[in-house]
Amino acid sequence: MRRWNSWGWETVSYPLPEQATHFLMDQLGGATPLPAASLTDVLASVPETRLEAHPLVDCSAEVRVNHSRGQSLADWLALKSGQLGVIPDGVAMPTTSEQVAELLQWAKQHQYKIIPYGGGTSVAGHITPQAAEQPILTLSLARLNQLINVDKDSLLATIGAGATGPQVEAQLQSQGYTLGHFPQSFEFSTLGGWIATRSSGQQSLYYGRIEQLFAGGRVETLEGALNIPAFPASAAGPDLREWVLGSEGRIGVITEAIMRVSPCPSYESFRVVVLPSWEQAIALLKKLVRLRLGLSMLRLSDGVETDTHLQLAGHPRSINALRWYLQKRGCGQGMCMLTVGFTGQQKSQYQNKIKLCKQLVAQHKGVSTGEWLGKKWAAGRFRLPYLREALWQRGFLVDTVETAIAWSQINLLKEQLENAVANALVDEGEKTWVFTHISHCYPQGASLYTTFLFRQADNYTTTYARWQKLKQAACEAIVKVGGTISHHHGVGKDHAPYLKAEKGELGIQQIKNWLINFDPNQQLNPGTLLPNPLLPSTLTPDSDQEDISRLSQDEPTDNQLSVHHDACQQMA
Amino acid sequence: MRRWNSWGWETVSYPLPEQATHFLMDQLGGATPLPAASLTDVLASVPETRLEAHPLVDCSAEVRVNHSRGQSLADWLALKSGQLGVIPDGVAMPTTSEQVAELLQWAKQHQYKIIPYGGGTSVAGHITPQAAEQPILTLSLARLNQLINVDKDSLLATIGAGATGPQVEAQLQSQGYTLGHFPQSFEFSTLGGWIATRSSGQQSLYYGRIEQLFAGGRVETLEGALNIPAFPASAAGPDLREWVLGSEGRIGVITEAIMRVSPCPSYESFRVVVLPSWEQAIALLKKLVRLRLGLSMLRLSDGVETDTHLQLAGHPRSINALRWYLQKRGCGQGMCMLTVGFTGQQKSQYQNKIKLCKQLVAQHKGVSTGEWLGKKWAAGRFRLPYLREALWQRGFLVDTVETAIAWSQINLLKEQLENAVANALVDEGEKTWVFTHISHCYPQGASLYTTFLFRQADNYTTTYARWQKLKQAACEAIVKVGGTISHHHGVGKDHAPYLKAEKGELGIQQIKNWLINFDPNQQLNPGTLLPNPLLPSTLTPDSDQEDISRLSQDEPTDNQLSVHHDACQQMA
Repeated sequence: MRRWNSWGWETVSYPLPEQATHFLMDQLGGATPLPAASLTDVLASVPETRLEAHPLVDCSAEVRVNHSRGQSLADWLALKSGQLGVIPDGVAMPTTSEQVAELLQWAKQHQYKIIPYGGGTSVAGHITPQAAEQPILTLSLARLNQLINVDKDSLLATIGAGATGPQVEAQLQSQGYTLGHFPQSFEFSTLGGWIATRSSGQQSLYYGRIEQLFAGGRVETLEGALNIPAFPASAAGPDLREWVLGSEGRIGVITEAIMRVSPCPSYESFRVVVLPSWEQAIALLKKLVRLRLGLSMLRLSDGVETDTHLQLAGHPRSINALRWYLQKRGCGQGMCMLTVGFTGQQKSQYQNKIKLCKQLVAQHKGVSTGEWLGKKWAAGRFRLPYLREALWQRGFLVDTVETAIAWSQINLLKEQLENAVANALVDEGEKTWVFTHISHCYPQGASLYTTFLFRQADNYTTTYARWQKLKQAACEAIVKVGGTISHHHGVGKDHAPYLKAEKGELGIQQIKNWLINFDPNQQLNPGTLLPNPLLPSTLTPDSDQEDISRLSQDEPTDNQLSVHHDACQQMA
Repeated sequence: MRRWNSWGWETVSYPLPEQATHFLMDQLGGATPLPAASLTDVLASVPETRLEAHPLVDCSAEVRVNHSRGQSLADWLALKSGQLGVIPDGVAMPTTSEQVAELLQWAKQHQYKIIPYGGGTSVAGHITPQAAEQPILTLSLARLNQLINVDKDSLLATIGAGATGPQVEAQLQSQGYTLGHFPQSFEFSTLGGWIATRSSGQQSLYYGRIEQLFAGGRVETLEGALNIPAFPASAAGPDLREWVLGSEGRIGVITEAIMRVSPCPSYESFRVVVLPSWEQAIALLKKLVRLRLGLSMLRLSDGVETDTHLQLAGHPRSINALRWYLQKRGCGQGMCMLTVGFTGQQKSQYQNKIKLCKQLVAQHKGVSTGEWLGKKWAAGRFRLPYLREALWQRGFLVDTVETAIAWSQINLLKEQLENAVANALVDEGEKTWVFTHISHCYPQGASLYTTFLFRQADNYTTTYARWQKLKQAACEAIVKVGGTISHHHGVGKDHAPYLKAEKGELGIQQIKNWLINFDPNQQLNPGTLLPNPLLPSTLTPDSDQEDISRLSQDEPTDNQLSVHHDACQQMA
């Protein structure tokens, strides 16, 4: 069973070593976990459904609660407190594209709001329902999870969009293929969700982001079906795949996707090297990524993250031995851990990659730790989200923000982002523990992924307010320096107020107009991507003013967090 | 000076060897060139402009004629016959984005039609004006051709969208960088044109298609400016770059582009290998492209194209020696020439690529011709379009169509496409000489580029009708088997009627609605991408019917070629 108010399977946990707790207490002070509501109590508070009966729709309290929230920290606080506020009126479980189409027409007739639901792993509020006069139907793709077809000659696989990571890979690998898409949410997130939110996997340097893997497919909309053929490339005008990518459930429901797959790799390894400084590490990353070597991963922890990981790892004796060894080799204070992924089909090519990479690492005074830490990373690559529960139990909270920016701006953004987060709770005398890694590299720049830990307060309202302050400070810093508001988590409801900074006034207006073309009555996933209500296109600047100003960066809080207000106003 | 009614510089020609003429006469029969109209006569026939005076707009007859047509065969016939029909009423020559914005507002006020103009190299009718009640303003970007900025740390260059290939490369290379975008039209086509039509260069296997190189930029629209920041990657909803790519001048005018550039390569070569058969060659291509070796080009001629190139090359003695050598090594009838490009920054990596490639070529019984033919190819890589004039002078015409499709369908499409073209003129007893190459390879499939030669008739009307039949037969074959209507030439006016086959009914309707959002009065490049007039969004299927049916595949001729009708009805 999946946990109803936390990450992951009930049978899997990531216990926090005693030493790690002490480390965090040293940084943040002691903490006490907030009391969590019981499922029984929450179920008892679920209101009557407002939906008409439909054979494909389940309106039971438990199913509705289980599909009511994603995995953002705000979602967690709502679930843990038991103050859910708005929840869907029912959950549809179609098994075919035709049933999805039928459900959409049914919802259109009844003017229901519709939330397409993949794995419920959004950390940006994508599937969190907003209060609406109309009933809310969550449409789960969970039963459209089959591998439908593999064109082996063309390495194209047609897969139901509701397939989770393990379902995608198990079905493909049984035939000798892999999609190669491994986001950290892999265990539960789904193919359709990856596409709708422009997901990026840990090995995207080799396999590509989901944008590159998504070749075509079927999208059911309120106006009919979009069937997008899978061409290897095309210059035939607008690319409709790009209308689906990042559409976050607002133009329709992805039911099938034709994906570019690869043969399972013959050779693969992950190796951890340690660089003496962030500057050396950045210089190395640029060289490696610009050589187009075909590496599969470059993941660089900054000095604080490196140190924190070593602190949280347990095994103090081996860690101390490692530190001693690294110190001897010139890597001490400020050293940065870099995990490099090697993937390949052909032996000499694979070996040449490793050899060249080693040369460059040595040129940048890096120290190889062999394959030991790399294997450890690979074994636990999807386990990290479980740590959130262990931290919760100790009274700590952890959240992350992520962005991408050009290399020339990356240090400035890192500094401003970390400062903003580190200082966000100073007014209440609270500390924040902040560190950053680069998870994805490109010749032009990289992603920054910043993690912050802080203490729960003694009630949910204050705890939520702490998160609000941190999230807002982080997002404003990103936008101010010119990073994108998301490299791979998407916009959802939490990032919607910041979108105007990168799309511009005309861009936002045209995205609105485009959404209205697909969904004139704004039934699909309202509030995600752009705050609701969408006003129809206004070509006079004056009348436009009011609507656009709602997105102003100066006052993101109301829009950004309105979704959580209902739940949190009642928190004790 | 550039030729006004043919390809290229007046000082450059590609004379047809005598042997080549005989070869074509053997295949197609003898031919006589049609008489070409003089520029003086054409200028004398230019009507008065219908535009108001504007300091940035040139309404002289010569400038208007010089911007009246692209390089499609239909464009050529209009130019050569001197029966231009519709031409623009004037040509604007702005030097800044602000002037472009000002001109757009001026045109909006006066309800002029607006044709954004890059290098005039379209082979699909992109810039060919359609008859309109309103005056037609062609807006040339020629003076926005400067390298504005290079962010060396991030390998990002901001460049005026009117820069031609040589202007882009000269400015970048002087600083040690290259865009690496080398379409065959490189000498004259422009950055903005590449972006607007989803162009692909000869070395896109290494540098990427223009989609991958275009990081951001500025687009002036009738509703204001879109400023698109250059992120290395983003998951922030719809990617506005993808709204610009393939927009073919219908949503606005690209004025500046931020491009992903590379350091000039330290190592580069092109090597020609010969494979004994198409089947062996295809098997080799799949292996090479799927290894992600970082090759920069894979260009495979089929047996007929290989033989034709050898026939047209002149130097019969060296060619015979080569044939004899290849025959000895197992490559005779049906052999296929493959040009492989190697590009790199790092010596051992570059050498390893070549070594591995050689091994695979040998495994597929390929024979290397060393670097001789490869150097010849590189030296003449942008010269081939000049051959069209030499052929014209001998009474022959040449045209090409191109598509892309999955590997599993590639042989079927090649066969059907070639058969369709070969038989298109059988009813009038005319032969066609047809051959094909693969110009771009992907793990999932490849482009097909089919060339056909045929004879001019004894008048322009019949000659034009021959081209119509050939073009229609080719496009219908592509659409029937399921290829895209263009891999890198774009849609323009000539391919617009075939777009529905790949976008679907809903896709076409939504593209229309999207265009109307940017250009409610349909002033921008009407008839390109979608036939005009665009009807406003109709959400009732019935009223939609009539409009959609205009795009039906069953009757493409009228729509497709209406643009040329005016000119050709008068041809003698």
